[in-house]
Amino acid sequence: MPLPASARVDIERFWTTIERSGEIGVGRPGGLSRLALGDADKEIRDLFVAWCREAGLTVRIDAIGNIFARRAGQDDTLPPVMMGSHLDTQVNGGRFDGIAGVLGGLEVIRTLDAIGHRTRRPLELVNWTNEEGGRFSPPMVGSGVFTGVYTLDWAQERRDDDGKSMGEELQRVSYAGEAQAAPPPLDAYFEFHIEQGPILDREGFQVGVVTGGYASTGTIVEFRGETAHTGPWPMEKRRNALAAGARLLTAVDDLGWEFAGSGGKATAARLVAWPNKPGIISDWAQVTCDVRHADPEAAAVMAERMLRAAHEAAARASCGIEILDTWRWGGKVFAEEMIGLVRETSLALGYRTRDILSQAGHDAYFLARDTPSAMIFAPCKNGITHNNNELSTREDLEPGLNVLLRAVVARADR
Amino acid sequence: MPLPASARVDIERFWTTIERSGEIGVGRPGGLSRLALGDADKEIRDLFVAWCREAGLTVRIDAIGNIFARRAGQDDTLPPVMMGSHLDTQVNGGRFDGIAGVLGGLEVIRTLDAIGHRTRRPLELVNWTNEEGGRFSPPMVGSGVFTGVYTLDWAQERRDDDGKSMGEELQRVSYAGEAQAAPPPLDAYFEFHIEQGPILDREGFQVGVVTGGYASTGTIVEFRGETAHTGPWPMEKRRNALAAGARLLTAVDDLGWEFAGSGGKATAARLVAWPNKPGIISDWAQVTCDVRHADPEAAAVMAERMLRAAHEAAARASCGIEILDTWRWGGKVFAEEMIGLVRETSLALGYRTRDILSQAGHDAYFLARDTPSAMIFAPCKNGITHNNNELSTREDLEPGLNVLLRAVVARADR
Repeated sequence: MPLPASARVDIERFWTTIERSGEIGVGRPGGLSRLALGDADKEIRDLFVAWCREAGLTVRIDAIGNIFARRAGQDDTLPPVMMGSHLDTQVNGGRFDGIAGVLGGLEVIRTLDAIGHRTRRPLELVNWTNEEGGRFSPPMVGSGVFTGVYTLDWAQERRDDDGKSMGEELQRVSYAGEAQAAPPPLDAYFEFHIEQGPILDREGFQVGVVTGGYASTGTIVEFRGETAHTGPWPMEKRRNALAAGARLLTAVDDLGWEFAGSGGKATAARLVAWPNKPGIISDWAQVTCDVRHADPEAAAVMAERMLRAAHEAAARASCGIEILDTWRWGGKVFAEEMIGLVRETSLALGYRTRDILSQAGHDAYFLARDTPSAMIFAPCKNGITHNNNELSTREDLEPGLNVLLRAVVARADR
Repeated sequence: MPLPASARVDIERFWTTIERSGEIGVGRPGGLSRLALGDADKEIRDLFVAWCREAGLTVRIDAIGNIFARRAGQDDTLPPVMMGSHLDTQVNGGRFDGIAGVLGGLEVIRTLDAIGHRTRRPLELVNWTNEEGGRFSPPMVGSGVFTGVYTLDWAQERRDDDGKSMGEELQRVSYAGEAQAAPPPLDAYFEFHIEQGPILDREGFQVGVVTGGYASTGTIVEFRGETAHTGPWPMEKRRNALAAGARLLTAVDDLGWEFAGSGGKATAARLVAWPNKPGIISDWAQVTCDVRHADPEAAAVMAERMLRAAHEAAARASCGIEILDTWRWGGKVFAEEMIGLVRETSLALGYRTRDILSQAGHDAYFLARDTPSAMIFAPCKNGITHNNNELSTREDLEPGLNVLLRAVVARADR
């Protein structure tokens, strides 16, 4: 029996879950500070698992803490259709980023339960661990392990600024699961997400059909110098790792401005140094920075320039340099059939719909490597995100959630 | 009775105290990590106080933790002659910086005891609190409070990176004393110190007569921006406080290179930011930097350029800016009569002696405001300091200590 044409999510029920989530890990006014595998992340995970069990889903946790909640299909031997996102936030995050995708998936399942619709294929709802990278670098670790981009061992060894590892913290919050991840292959992956940019809101569109992502390159660079006195030590003998780091970040910011006219972005994101004290030159610094552009060729130029700037900064400060990590994402990662399904579903529902590129990193990029994947964007006010003033209203979110509902079912019922 | 012409310090006895001190707060191989008011600082303070009491000195602690140890004079109503320096180190400090001045003063007193010489004026041996500023900013806080440059309340509120205040830490290590500082006026202040620069070592001089200091300006600058996503947020809307900080540090390093030909130095010393995480733009950053030059006019230009660079960095990153603190020292601070006394004493002892400017900040600068003051420099190998490889041998230190002995007695006996 097909899904009734009138079937819609219950936006008030969904909003209740968003508001409940917004009470866990409260940060600055209106925002959240729910870092991966911290106490607040554990609290929302526990609540999410309880909600899933309440909905009759079978919950499994894998070794990197990804939470999978399965709704049986009519034919449970078929590869499942997966949907989800992440419940963790940045230290000054909002209440919607990632969260709307996980709780939106839960709302889809509750809607199907209310209607009494069982999809042909099983459904999998997922919460990915440490999407943000706001505590452990890099971002998208849970989906990275799931898709084989990162090894489990490597991921477990990622450490926060206090030296705690993801492995230790997974144990501490009791989310180091033993389950295998959902048995591959998956039939499809859908991720509903706020845009995290101003385009839909500014132009009055209700649904963004994500056709791909800005080509993005991020890197962690380490500089090694030598401590000395900030006074007498001659400039030509100095090996100031902090100065090298500052030079790289300045060059990266300049790069962003240089490409700003064509929508490019480059971010001086993080700089830590040691001793990083007045009176003494730092002998160690670590920088995290990234560049993004809609045009893959421009993005490649930016990435190459960023790398060159790192080496120039090291040379100028007479420091050693090591590129500790580099990550790339974006491009035309999503399957045409999935993009088409989302677009047609949205248009059929009568929503003002446009194609859009994602400028942020998302778990969907990793999923798309082996699984036909799609993202659905909802507007957020003025594009403000990673900020306590992030806001999407019920009106902003409802259209995209209905697209998620119908596209997931269309895929799962075929 | 005058000091016998043959009177000399006992360099082996002095070296024993240096080696004992070098066991407390051990850092990297050969170095010390003895931050102000930490456990290791408490341990060396306790030992120093015990050594002073053993030498029959009267010990007093003032409210900011400065330790004064008094040796009575023949006429104890006369203003005392003070000598000393500091026992705290940077986080990667050496075993001599400051320490040689405090323990050198103790050696002078032990030598006078051994000879049985009582000076006409009393002697005061001092250990200043938090000279380095390696934990609490700014440097030279103890001598700053003593000389009225800083108020006690303000100093007690200085906080380390963990948010602990000097006031709390003084209580914790039991060095929040009740004593008044030595009753002003002092007759004179002498500070023996390693050069912390390469000049004496390179040129083969045994004693440096410090005629003044590089004119130095240090500042703490705060930038305030706004958090946002490192991806979609347009460059022209960004208010990246970390980028502002990096721009200031880069400009300061450039300034150092620009003035390097005439011996100027500028240091990108410290940068902290929040959240300082990948994926989110930082809305707060704090920078510490300084400039120094032998020529006060060039130094003034550098200081003005540093300040301008701070405002330019803030403007470029659309951040708010606040200059939280600015400190200045150096110039011709030392009394001619004191400089002459040190020079003549050194030459009379037959030491290879040269005038020299200090490039580092010292407590003596603050003391010199109201008290005739002098500094005596000893060579250190290759000028390496604020580094675990800092090294001055007995041969490097003995001449300066003998100059300290005889100059102090000459002053105290007049």
